[in-house]
Amino acid sequence: MILKLKGIKAMRAEQQQQQTKYGFSKTVDIGFDEAIEKTRAALKEEGFGVLSEIDIKEKLKEKLDVDFRRYTILGACNPSLAYKTLQEELEIGLLLPCNVIVYEADDKNTSVISAVDAKAMLSVVGNNAALDQVAGEVNERLQRVLSSL
Amino acid sequence: MILKLKGIKAMRAEQQQQQTKYGFSKTVDIGFDEAIEKTRAALKEEGFGVLSEIDIKEKLKEKLDVDFRRYTILGACNPSLAYKTLQEELEIGLLLPCNVIVYEADDKNTSVISAVDAKAMLSVVGNNAALDQVAGEVNERLQRVLSSL
Repeated sequence: MILKLKGIKAMRAEQQQQQTKYGFSKTVDIGFDEAIEKTRAALKEEGFGVLSEIDIKEKLKEKLDVDFRRYTILGACNPSLAYKTLQEELEIGLLLPCNVIVYEADDKNTSVISAVDAKAMLSVVGNNAALDQVAGEVNERLQRVLSSL
Repeated sequence: MILKLKGIKAMRAEQQQQQTKYGFSKTVDIGFDEAIEKTRAALKEEGFGVLSEIDIKEKLKEKLDVDFRRYTILGACNPSLAYKTLQEELEIGLLLPCNVIVYEADDKNTSVISAVDAKAMLSVVGNNAALDQVAGEVNERLQRVLSSL
């Protein structure tokens, strides 16, 4: 019975991971704070440092006095891969770092974590085999981050 | 004679502003520190706060021990426009904030400032008239930022 329940939970988790037009997304049954903490740890495990962190809820309250769900943008960067892309194309900083967003779902006990699809982003750059290879590696790592959550 | 020289300088500045595949770029005859300072002021003038600042040269030195040109990524955000886009599409945080990069040109007395082309970025999202309108307004503002430098 326990095994069966675990199987159902695993299946459910699998279904919750999805590809969107410009990202990979996963819904997890944990609160926002825990989701942020786990995402940071998983990014580190895959060689990404978090170079920026933007608290959207706080900013919107401060600047516009509106109430928004808890929502944070983490700017994740793998130094070696970023260096490769910058050597290939100096202007690529316009697309760096790779965003990973964490936000409260409508049910506050559930959180959504999404990572940008580096290949989709690079579609604006045009054909470049070297950048394409790096984007592929970034995506593999980001997908492993989501899988581990 | 002075008027004539000013005219040539203005023409030169005009020529230095260009559209790239995913951004707008301008080369200015000022050093890096002054370029950063002027860019921040110009962004503020157009209603953009700087929500993140990544010193690429410092990060690459720290993480990989390599020497890179001075290069900073500013994450610029206009709160009202960001709020509109988030209400329209919750996942849009994957593409926020709007990056503006400032870096040393090969001649260190000259700097390059580039702003992301919000319309090009939105091409990955697909058709959405409301987002398209916001992207158009962002681009107008970012182009005015570059023009003012």
